[in-house]
Amino acid sequence: MFYHVKELQFNARVSKPDPAFARLLLEQFGGANGELAAAMQYFVQAFGARQPHPDKYDLLMDIATEEFSHLEIVGATIQMLLDGINGELKDAANESEIMQLLDGTDKKEGFIHEAMTNPQFLALSGGGPTLTNSNGVPWTAAYVNSNGDLTVDLRSDMAAESRAKIVYEYLMQFTDDPYVKDTLRFLMTREVAHYQMFHAALETIQPNFPMGTRQSDPRYSNSYFNLSNGASARGPWNEGQSPDLGEDWVYVEDPIEHVRKTQGMVVDHEPRGTSRTEDEVQKTNRELGKQRKEAVMSTLPEGGNQWSAYPQEDPASPMGIETEEK
Amino acid sequence: MFYHVKELQFNARVSKPDPAFARLLLEQFGGANGELAAAMQYFVQAFGARQPHPDKYDLLMDIATEEFSHLEIVGATIQMLLDGINGELKDAANESEIMQLLDGTDKKEGFIHEAMTNPQFLALSGGGPTLTNSNGVPWTAAYVNSNGDLTVDLRSDMAAESRAKIVYEYLMQFTDDPYVKDTLRFLMTREVAHYQMFHAALETIQPNFPMGTRQSDPRYSNSYFNLSNGASARGPWNEGQSPDLGEDWVYVEDPIEHVRKTQGMVVDHEPRGTSRTEDEVQKTNRELGKQRKEAVMSTLPEGGNQWSAYPQEDPASPMGIETEEK
Amino acid sequence: MFYHVKELQFNARVSKPDPAFARLLLEQFGGANGELAAAMQYFVQAFGARQPHPDKYDLLMDIATEEFSHLEIVGATIQMLLDGINGELKDAANESEIMQLLDGTDKKEGFIHEAMTNPQFLALSGGGPTLTNSNGVPWTAAYVNSNGDLTVDLRSDMAAESRAKIVYEYLMQFTDDPYVKDTLRFLMTREVAHYQMFHAALETIQPNFPMGTRQSDPRYSNSYFNLSNGASARGPWNEGQSPDLGEDWVYVEDPIEHVRKTQGMVVDHEPRGTSRTEDEVQKTNRELGKQRKEAVMSTLPEGGNQWSAYPQEDPASPMGIETEEK
Amino acid sequence: MFYHVKELQFNARVSKPDPAFARLLLEQFGGANGELAAAMQYFVQAFGARQPHPDKYDLLMDIATEEFSHLEIVGATIQMLLDGINGELKDAANESEIMQLLDGTDKKEGFIHEAMTNPQFLALSGGGPTLTNSNGVPWTAAYVNSNGDLTVDLRSDMAAESRAKIVYEYLMQFTDDPYVKDTLRFLMTREVAHYQMFHAALETIQPNFPMGTRQSDPRYSNSYFNLSNGASARGPWNEGQSPDLGEDWVYVEDPIEHVRKTQGMVVDHEPRGTSRTEDEVQKTNRELGKQRKEAVMSTLPEGGNQWSAYPQEDPASPMGIETEEK
Amino acid sequence: MFYHVKELQFNARVSKPDPAFARLLLEQFGGANGELAAAMQYFVQAFGARQPHPDKYDLLMDIATEEFSHLEIVGATIQMLLDGINGELKDAANESEIMQLLDGTDKKEGFIHEAMTNPQFLALSGGGPTLTNSNGVPWTAAYVNSNGDLTVDLRSDMAAESRAKIVYEYLMQFTDDPYVKDTLRFLMTREVAHYQMFHAALETIQPNFPMGTRQSDPRYSNSYFNLSNGASARGPWNEGQSPDLGEDWVYVEDPIEHVRKTQGMVVDHEPRGTSRTEDEVQKTNRELGKQRKEAVMSTLPEGGNQWSAYPQEDPASPMGIETEEK
Amino acid sequence: MFYHVKELQFNARVSKPDPAFARLLLEQFGGANGELAAAMQYFVQAFGARQPHPDKYDLLMDIATEEFSHLEIVGATIQMLLDGINGELKDAANESEIMQLLDGTDKKEGFIHEAMTNPQFLALSGGGPTLTNSNGVPWTAAYVNSNGDLTVDLRSDMAAESRAKIVYEYLMQFTDDPYVKDTLRFLMTREVAHYQMFHAALETIQPNFPMGTRQSDPRYSNSYFNLSNGASARGPWNEGQSPDLGEDWVYVEDPIEHVRKTQGMVVDHEPRGTSRTEDEVQKTNRELGKQRKEAVMSTLPEGGNQWSAYPQEDPASPMGIETEEK
Repeated sequence: MFYHVKELQFNARVSKPDPAFARLLLEQFGGANGELAAAMQYFVQAFGARQPHPDKYDLLMDIATEEFSHLEIVGATIQMLLDGINGELKDAANESEIMQLLDGTDKKEGFIHEAMTNPQFLALSGGGPTLTNSNGVPWTAAYVNSNGDLTVDLRSDMAAESRAKIVYEYLMQFTDDPYVKDTLRFLMTREVAHYQMFHAALETIQPNFPMGTRQSDPRYSNSYFNLSNGASARGPWNEGQSPDLGEDWVYVEDPIEHVRKTQGMVVDHEPRGTSRTEDEVQKTNRELGKQRKEAVMSTLPEGGNQWSAYPQEDPASPMGIETEEK
Repeated sequence: MFYHVKELQFNARVSKPDPAFARLLLEQFGGANGELAAAMQYFVQAFGARQPHPDKYDLLMDIATEEFSHLEIVGATIQMLLDGINGELKDAANESEIMQLLDGTDKKEGFIHEAMTNPQFLALSGGGPTLTNSNGVPWTAAYVNSNGDLTVDLRSDMAAESRAKIVYEYLMQFTDDPYVKDTLRFLMTREVAHYQMFHAALETIQPNFPMGTRQSDPRYSNSYFNLSNGASARGPWNEGQSPDLGEDWVYVEDPIEHVRKTQGMVVDHEPRGTSRTEDEVQKTNRELGKQRKEAVMSTLPEGGNQWSAYPQEDPASPMGIETEEK
Repeated sequence: MFYHVKELQFNARVSKPDPAFARLLLEQFGGANGELAAAMQYFVQAFGARQPHPDKYDLLMDIATEEFSHLEIVGATIQMLLDGINGELKDAANESEIMQLLDGTDKKEGFIHEAMTNPQFLALSGGGPTLTNSNGVPWTAAYVNSNGDLTVDLRSDMAAESRAKIVYEYLMQFTDDPYVKDTLRFLMTREVAHYQMFHAALETIQPNFPMGTRQSDPRYSNSYFNLSNGASARGPWNEGQSPDLGEDWVYVEDPIEHVRKTQGMVVDHEPRGTSRTEDEVQKTNRELGKQRKEAVMSTLPEGGNQWSAYPQEDPASPMGIETEEK
Repeated sequence: MFYHVKELQFNARVSKPDPAFARLLLEQFGGANGELAAAMQYFVQAFGARQPHPDKYDLLMDIATEEFSHLEIVGATIQMLLDGINGELKDAANESEIMQLLDGTDKKEGFIHEAMTNPQFLALSGGGPTLTNSNGVPWTAAYVNSNGDLTVDLRSDMAAESRAKIVYEYLMQFTDDPYVKDTLRFLMTREVAHYQMFHAALETIQPNFPMGTRQSDPRYSNSYFNLSNGASARGPWNEGQSPDLGEDWVYVEDPIEHVRKTQGMVVDHEPRGTSRTEDEVQKTNRELGKQRKEAVMSTLPEGGNQWSAYPQEDPASPMGIETEEK
Repeated sequence: MFYHVKELQFNARVSKPDPAFARLLLEQFGGANGELAAAMQYFVQAFGARQPHPDKYDLLMDIATEEFSHLEIVGATIQMLLDGINGELKDAANESEIMQLLDGTDKKEGFIHEAMTNPQFLALSGGGPTLTNSNGVPWTAAYVNSNGDLTVDLRSDMAAESRAKIVYEYLMQFTDDPYVKDTLRFLMTREVAHYQMFHAALETIQPNFPMGTRQSDPRYSNSYFNLSNGASARGPWNEGQSPDLGEDWVYVEDPIEHVRKTQGMVVDHEPRGTSRTEDEVQKTNRELGKQRKEAVMSTLPEGGNQWSAYPQEDPASPMGIETEEK
Repeated sequence: MFYHVKELQFNARVSKPDPAFARLLLEQFGGANGELAAAMQYFVQAFGARQPHPDKYDLLMDIATEEFSHLEIVGATIQMLLDGINGELKDAANESEIMQLLDGTDKKEGFIHEAMTNPQFLALSGGGPTLTNSNGVPWTAAYVNSNGDLTVDLRSDMAAESRAKIVYEYLMQFTDDPYVKDTLRFLMTREVAHYQMFHAALETIQPNFPMGTRQSDPRYSNSYFNLSNGASARGPWNEGQSPDLGEDWVYVEDPIEHVRKTQGMVVDHEPRGTSRTEDEVQKTNRELGKQRKEAVMSTLPEGGNQWSAYPQEDPASPMGIETEEK
């Protein structure tokens, strides 16, 4: 259940209207890496975590709720950057005045002129935020990643925070309003904080690599295919040891030849540079699969299921239906 | 600022998993008339109302927050209807078992078979809700309407509640789980309640028709064009008086002839069946425009703007920047 | 079957090209509340109404057809506002001239410069309208609402007309071409007229509240949850009587406490402030459901079905297959 | 201006409901190659043709209007294939019956069961068509091509008709209702007819290749790059003469070597296998460009512009503003 | 399998940054008719052609691969047109400088100012290309047409090349950088070359009209419906013979009357102006259908299937599984 | 420049057609985490890396090219899983046979029946892959993340590989064809390999946290807001030290109270639990910003720019225009 308090989490203020910057700021309201995208991603991921991982559920909901609160801050800032447009639009008698503003003949309130950079501020939203990115493209759930496995979801979240951070970093270059800068810097900093929370949570799950439960095939996990020719570079990504599995990189200089020779990598293509064996892989698959399945199944009650207790005094959901029966 | 409590607003429970109904229920999670669409619509509209209309802002945020809470209820129900899928997917060793379930050879846990009706439950989300409609189409902000004028926005909201209500009504036909039915009935009822809240709020704004501030042109506001021929029907929508302006409907039997004769409705096309005159229209436009503009402008502070006070002890925003200066 | 006559319903004219306004006007060509959205919404709704409600079908098709005719007016106006661009683009030899126009070096035909506000006028459509909104986002059927129940659909239509009206109202502020203003005012006025037609049609259906056939649950239909705290407002939407059902609003001051105490609203949560009872609700559900179902079923013929008679001399469809048999 | 008559262009009938085929048929209602896509494509293209090419405008509007009429036929057929669903959904008392139908326990009206293949027929549209393709994806204007040049647009139209034809061909395999087959065959045949109309119209424009006004560069217009290696095929597309310009194909056996040797095709890369010269190309560009520009510009009036005359007695638009002046 | 070499197919160069033109050029990077759309269309079509038509597969993959190479050229050009933006964005200390550039106070590096025409260059991509069209709309697979029949697909491809060609033609008007013009002209010319390759390939398939395998119904294949009235035009598209089937056009002057009289074209509507008969049509349908089906089926191996041989020494796929067995 | 060889990178084979699994597999062809999404993400990111970071450019292009090669493997597998459908569709004479298959009357080729799970295989693509996800939603560039900073982009790539890996893991549960399983396992393993390549590359950039160049504000970087109440969990994400900056987590038990007291976190809100100071932050911002800007700018030539040398003998681009001058 959500609750709203009228105080913003951060005291958002603006010195004066600035519709051109309002347009840029839409990127963090309804854009791919904006606050709604973040809020919805953690919120949607949380459902699957609720029963098997109540601590991670708490984390995801804490941050999701903070991102909703940030969405509110961004929307409030956009609204204040558009101050006055709504009023102007309501006055049927001042058309010729608005036309002067658009012509730039009247310099003193050029903000209507600036607002033309996003025509929907004028023709559609009446001077308020739209749930779009800075180019006017509507927000889409295609931005949201939720895959039912915390070793994957938490990595998606660390990446999402990284993108949100850089967008705020870029945006800070385009305003010189000290109040707006303060707000952006607060929001940017919180992305850095959230990144670390997700990182810490990921580390509590062991093993967390490879993500999910299945091990990789030792025949293919350390090959590097040199598929972009001309002049090639070497680095720790294709020489020495791989950082997570610690296998030796095998550099395939001429992948076309290699593919032909191995008949599409199925003939004479034994593991090299790794100590992992197929038997171990299968064993780990079975054991880890069983263990992870059990971790989920053991938190599901027999019979019907109930999401929350009243009151909820424990992070975990009730194990079965608790209140008066049907 | 938002806040989350772990108790759901309504005690959502399920008797047993039902992936096929989970798919249908996605319509209210990430569909056009679902809870996210409602929540976001009222939330986005609220920004423009914050300073000129703090009472309507309070109303919009109360209902938006309730819709977020309903989104959570719907998501929780979908998750419980998918119970067990996530666990099955984690077990690399049970592939052949899952294949049997898909074949229907093993009848006892046909739910994996049912889940195939939405392949993303299996291949993408790992047995959790996706932010899509029941056909898997991602939620888009194209569903959200916010136009910067309460006489329009509140009507959009009444229509949105009507659509949400009928979708719950339809959905109730497709489950016989008594717990799920209870939840759906609660959610359906709340749409009826919200409709009336928006209706009551609209009535407090006078005049509220036509929506916005400009009057309609008396030459064209009461014509009915009979553009679909063959056999036509008459009713209060094209005979007698129009319900809101109280003008006499003028039925144009042969619109093609009429258009030719009036040279595209600009020659010999005087107002008929109405007592409104162009002069009155212009006068009202000027006066209402001025008044509505003033209502907005008078709540904007001179100089910088600040969204909330700390603490917020009054529904209205502070008139100017209140905390320590820059 | 549709038919097209070359005369526009309204005599659309322009004084001179104005590509910047053409871009704004796209909002009503391919935008969320534009003429195509309206036309398609009523057209799609009409299919379901054809057999059970031939009078409403006639109304929906009359207005749908008028909206198509308005789409044509808007497109024609955009095309005339872009006059000359297509010609310029065809001349491979005048590149340096066009570049001068873009630089603004040649002031006399700055319209190419203005057209840059929507690059697709230059690079894609060759100086014609695109089926997008004013930000270039393609029209999507996500804008269309059709739910198979006239008490819902007509409300969606009243809201759609409201939005279209305010967009025309806003647009009128951004042109001073008297011909274009005349066209916009005609179109705006027609939205006001259509609103009233849908309103009148809705009133002929009784009861029409709640929309659909199921009654709301008396335990939850009059509660108001104060979910946005800080400083709250009271008004007819949360005190006194609800406008449509006439129940007393019950104001839940502290929803979190209330939810905990009632165990998610299922324990000790009897109807208050209403005279409606569960028994009455169930009775109405049964009776109204039966009656509404019958209204649909009674217009379906036994055996095969046929959409129209030849000639169609009656608003109703034929009851069965009429022409020569298979 | 559009006009609607209640008789369908073709006498659409169905023998009995078939919701599964209704789902497939959505592909031609709201799909990429469906009737709406065709109608909108020709309609949008028509605006640019109105003044310079009134004969092609007439053609485009004739076919656009026919496609709208076909959209109606497809929608009517889908509606009749869903007959009965809307009625069932209205009856709150028959839930358990519907559940039996879904279970397949009650075989006699399995159509509700079939309708589950598209959940939106049940949960959203109440048993009517949706403006989506057969997978439920909303129609988008991204399907529409209009580029302001008839040598391009007519080719887009021939391709669009080809795609619509094959989709009807495929659909005919999935119904054995003789009435529905008749309707599909009529619609399929009309695509073949339209293809030929566009083809004939394209031939009246000379030259029509290359499309547009600019000639291709003789250095690059007849090269064939063998970029997909392994085992390559030869045919009239890479040996002999090119079909439209009549140049000799130059087969580049080893494109990587070729690119390196010619420094990215800019050094030592003279025209081969063609008699066209750069001078001729430039001359044609200038002359054809001038001529095509003039063809457009000469039909634009001095001063203001008006779309149609009243009555329209000539295919061409009026040259200037005709009715009473402002 | 793909392979990349670092040399661009054409030596793309720019004289200086030009962010405004970079925005326009996005139309060919991530737009409806851009290089990605072309590459993906031919690539997706190729899968179906691989086994039955290895020569057409080779053609499709040659051109698809060239289009990927062109996508790279376009992206490289956009990147170079944005040179310097990425560097500026990285410097947190130069905000006030950037603000000056935006104000236009500092004229010497107005490119940041120009880049504001696409805010995502600044706020999202950090000065690189985005996979969108020139209005910032993300690329969508809705642009791609692939229908499993070469007589259709090759026509879609000819139309696609036509559209790509005209967009390059338009774009060339908006830059005066001689290097960029050279690149655009190369790309434009290649579209003309590809058009002819597809055209030549289509001619090798006989019969290729009507596309697919089913013949059109002689009753409806040569009617022209005069559905756009007012003043109508005649031409080879509605008088004389149809260009592909060679039937006489039958001009239906008054389609409404015609439809009524023929009871929706099913009564008294015999073939006119054609020598084709229903019997012949059915015979051709059977024979051509059988032959085309056989052409596909005969290339499918019994039992399992394998895509490629190692090495692939023949254009055709192996007929059955070739390498070491399972 | 790209090049294609007919041998697949991996020897994709199928034992028999399986249209239902083909539908699931679309998730990796045109889905959010599929091969096209991966290929395009690395390809688009590569443009910005080309000149400043030629080694990372090589890495990104190597992997992008491999992903294109995987896209081909997935498409080939889908096509083989649909073997036979295209042939069936071509035969106009076998309609009644197909109808029997759909009915399930004829059990032996139930694959047409299965193909109905994705109607577009039958009605649109003619039995080939579509560029959609498993629910038929077209691929969109909204899936692609590219932000012009390698410390962000490489993290986006690690997350993308994680998601692709888990989707393959899930998919492996739904086929028992040993050939298909081999292919999926190869593809899954390569995601694990790519993850490690990106990880290794990220480590070569120091510092890489926070991503981008700006430091976080020490007042807000280590606060944890307990925004989801009821029963809360503690863990290394909100107690002890933050994993990347090594600051002490400050747990804000009651965020609402905290916000009120600090007037929206701007009054009396000094850094706690951290040794970082505002001065250091500003100094690092300046220095790192300058250094990162310089790294980009120093690789841009004076004057014009050229992407590649001919031949390209060095990973770096030429510094200036190299070939014959204009």
